[in-house]
Amino acid sequence: MASRPVITLTTDFGTRDSYVGVMKGVILCICPDAQIIDITHEIAPQDIVAAALIVQSFGDYFPPGAIHVVVVDPGVGSARKALALATPQAQYVGPDNGIFWPVWQAAQTHESSADLRAVALTNVRYWLPNPSATFHGRDIFSPVAAHLARGVAIGDLGDDLGQITELALPDVHREGAAVIGEIVAIDHFGNCISAITAAHLETLGSRSDLRVIVGRHILPISRTYADVAPGTELALLGSGNRLEIAVRNGDAHRQLGITRGTSIRVEQITPDG
Amino acid sequence: MASRPVITLTTDFGTRDSYVGVMKGVILCICPDAQIIDITHEIAPQDIVAAALIVQSFGDYFPPGAIHVVVVDPGVGSARKALALATPQAQYVGPDNGIFWPVWQAAQTHESSADLRAVALTNVRYWLPNPSATFHGRDIFSPVAAHLARGVAIGDLGDDLGQITELALPDVHREGAAVIGEIVAIDHFGNCISAITAAHLETLGSRSDLRVIVGRHILPISRTYADVAPGTELALLGSGNRLEIAVRNGDAHRQLGITRGTSIRVEQITPDG
Amino acid sequence: MASRPVITLTTDFGTRDSYVGVMKGVILCICPDAQIIDITHEIAPQDIVAAALIVQSFGDYFPPGAIHVVVVDPGVGSARKALALATPQAQYVGPDNGIFWPVWQAAQTHESSADLRAVALTNVRYWLPNPSATFHGRDIFSPVAAHLARGVAIGDLGDDLGQITELALPDVHREGAAVIGEIVAIDHFGNCISAITAAHLETLGSRSDLRVIVGRHILPISRTYADVAPGTELALLGSGNRLEIAVRNGDAHRQLGITRGTSIRVEQITPDG
Repeated sequence: MASRPVITLTTDFGTRDSYVGVMKGVILCICPDAQIIDITHEIAPQDIVAAALIVQSFGDYFPPGAIHVVVVDPGVGSARKALALATPQAQYVGPDNGIFWPVWQAAQTHESSADLRAVALTNVRYWLPNPSATFHGRDIFSPVAAHLARGVAIGDLGDDLGQITELALPDVHREGAAVIGEIVAIDHFGNCISAITAAHLETLGSRSDLRVIVGRHILPISRTYADVAPGTELALLGSGNRLEIAVRNGDAHRQLGITRGTSIRVEQITPDG
Repeated sequence: MASRPVITLTTDFGTRDSYVGVMKGVILCICPDAQIIDITHEIAPQDIVAAALIVQSFGDYFPPGAIHVVVVDPGVGSARKALALATPQAQYVGPDNGIFWPVWQAAQTHESSADLRAVALTNVRYWLPNPSATFHGRDIFSPVAAHLARGVAIGDLGDDLGQITELALPDVHREGAAVIGEIVAIDHFGNCISAITAAHLETLGSRSDLRVIVGRHILPISRTYADVAPGTELALLGSGNRLEIAVRNGDAHRQLGITRGTSIRVEQITPDG
Repeated sequence: MASRPVITLTTDFGTRDSYVGVMKGVILCICPDAQIIDITHEIAPQDIVAAALIVQSFGDYFPPGAIHVVVVDPGVGSARKALALATPQAQYVGPDNGIFWPVWQAAQTHESSADLRAVALTNVRYWLPNPSATFHGRDIFSPVAAHLARGVAIGDLGDDLGQITELALPDVHREGAAVIGEIVAIDHFGNCISAITAAHLETLGSRSDLRVIVGRHILPISRTYADVAPGTELALLGSGNRLEIAVRNGDAHRQLGITRGTSIRVEQITPDG
């Protein structure tokens, strides 16, 4: 009860300027007790798809009620809405440009709809005075998050939205006895993470009966990196439950020439295939 | 009253080594309750002008009394002074090499002089024992900041300084009905930030009557990035109240060849110009 | 007593993905009061020697009892052990692959052996349920550290280990009246840090009687960077008490062509040498 409210920050601001520091200062002015955690500030500038995939990846690991501020905001100062989102697990604050679509979708599928809520940020009482047209991370999203952390109810921030902005995410589809997807992210290690999840694979049967085809590579599904020799490529279910292509102690992105958008196919090994 | 004291860190140390972590450890040994916030550690090595501009940019957004440690210190171990600075808004700790000049100047202009104070750090009681000649961030500035956070009075740290080291900052000047300045910083997005501020523009009249000339570009002053089409260059007042040149969803520094030192001119649009 | 437990993080995860943020979320779920400090996440992927040298560099500067999580873990999911280590000064959590060897060795040499303890992490009660085979930083090391921070005794985490995995570190040896070592790390500034410590130099006599030979450079041992002119190379004892080669206001690594593994020799200046 007495524990400090958690506010996380995810942006494309980089860490070279004082933009992120300024957001933290604004939060601490309103909620001195906040525990502020950086997720990343290295989302590629204006990359809404990458932001949406990151946002989806960490919420379940934070304490219930944590407030996640996400600012990847090419439309800042335009007519795009600003929003706060409450799921049974967490609260989110940021621009309504699609970055919250996977979280919203997942909450709609899995949770009681009574606990899911989206609100347009229109109550200027919870903003900094005289907000700029270029830095809503500082002037709107940070102060709103800090007020939420102090206990302001989401309904006080503005009017309910029935829907939020959708985002077209890379498609995964069945093609006969195969699942076809694509690489959606390259991580720091050069691991190539696909849109294909554990749930997709389950529709194909036992993992040991499957093979992964990406470029000219045909790979079984390994359990962990150390299952193959150093320098060797492998496919495995990564820690986010997505199929990924890696090179043990290496960089699959550079070494195999796989990149975002590269097609990936999983199929059953035929008896004589 | 019971809220945790805020200490921010701004350095050119990068984040690859343990230098910044060690500073935080030193602070926590002395002031376990400190809320430590990174501003940036990516100031270019020994770039005093860049440090001074960053230092000027964030202080107003932090809670009153926050302590800002700044270590860009090419003269470490030499005869350069170390100092603590108190303004009505904040306290600063670091080398006296010019990085605090804009903050000092602003405080002299805008505040009651009674609240402005600079002290040379000479009282070794508030340093780590046996300070090195190469890492005063660890041995002097961090412990001094932590003692300030615990309530040590600035006057206990050493003798008052009547003056601190000046810094020659890029000049802005009037030339007839124009203001001439230069680009002083490139941010993470490639936005090119100039020395020309909102106050300079006000001397020229209404913003809609002005145009900005930089290289071969002649631009009106837009309100926000989204006012122009993606990929298009624009001029606008950035979030720090400085005139900047940007490319919407792009990188003005790379795409327009504008860099630190590039000249920028703002003039009135003549009726037939 | 009431101060918040300190947990530091050192990894090769980078800061682009949500891996580090997820570890922090896991820690805060178990120990909401933890003060989490990043040491660095930029250790080169799978670079165990670099990790071991970093780990050795910061522990002494943190409050006693701080818990240091280190995840550079090329063998994740293999048979390599996971461990917790208690020294009189600190606790460490991570894979048993050599990264803790210098800390262990130092503790054995300098401390009462009664206070030194290593435990294999086998008690799944302190892990996340269903740990993955690829991300023990999230599933094992972070929760174990958080439980330690809440007061769980190290002995509850698993069985005592009599020994931990050794690491072959770059050698330093005497050769007549000289000490021979090599460069073991390049820091953010391009300073080239060697395996030769102040203790090694003491065996050779007074520092002013010594000279350092690296590549085609013969250098006296300076006190600090500012002892030479800008742009000039120098040798000095760095802040970690290791002999380093630097260029004042420059980058010795790039400018002198010195790199990890470059040989370095310290010898007495002969009267007519």
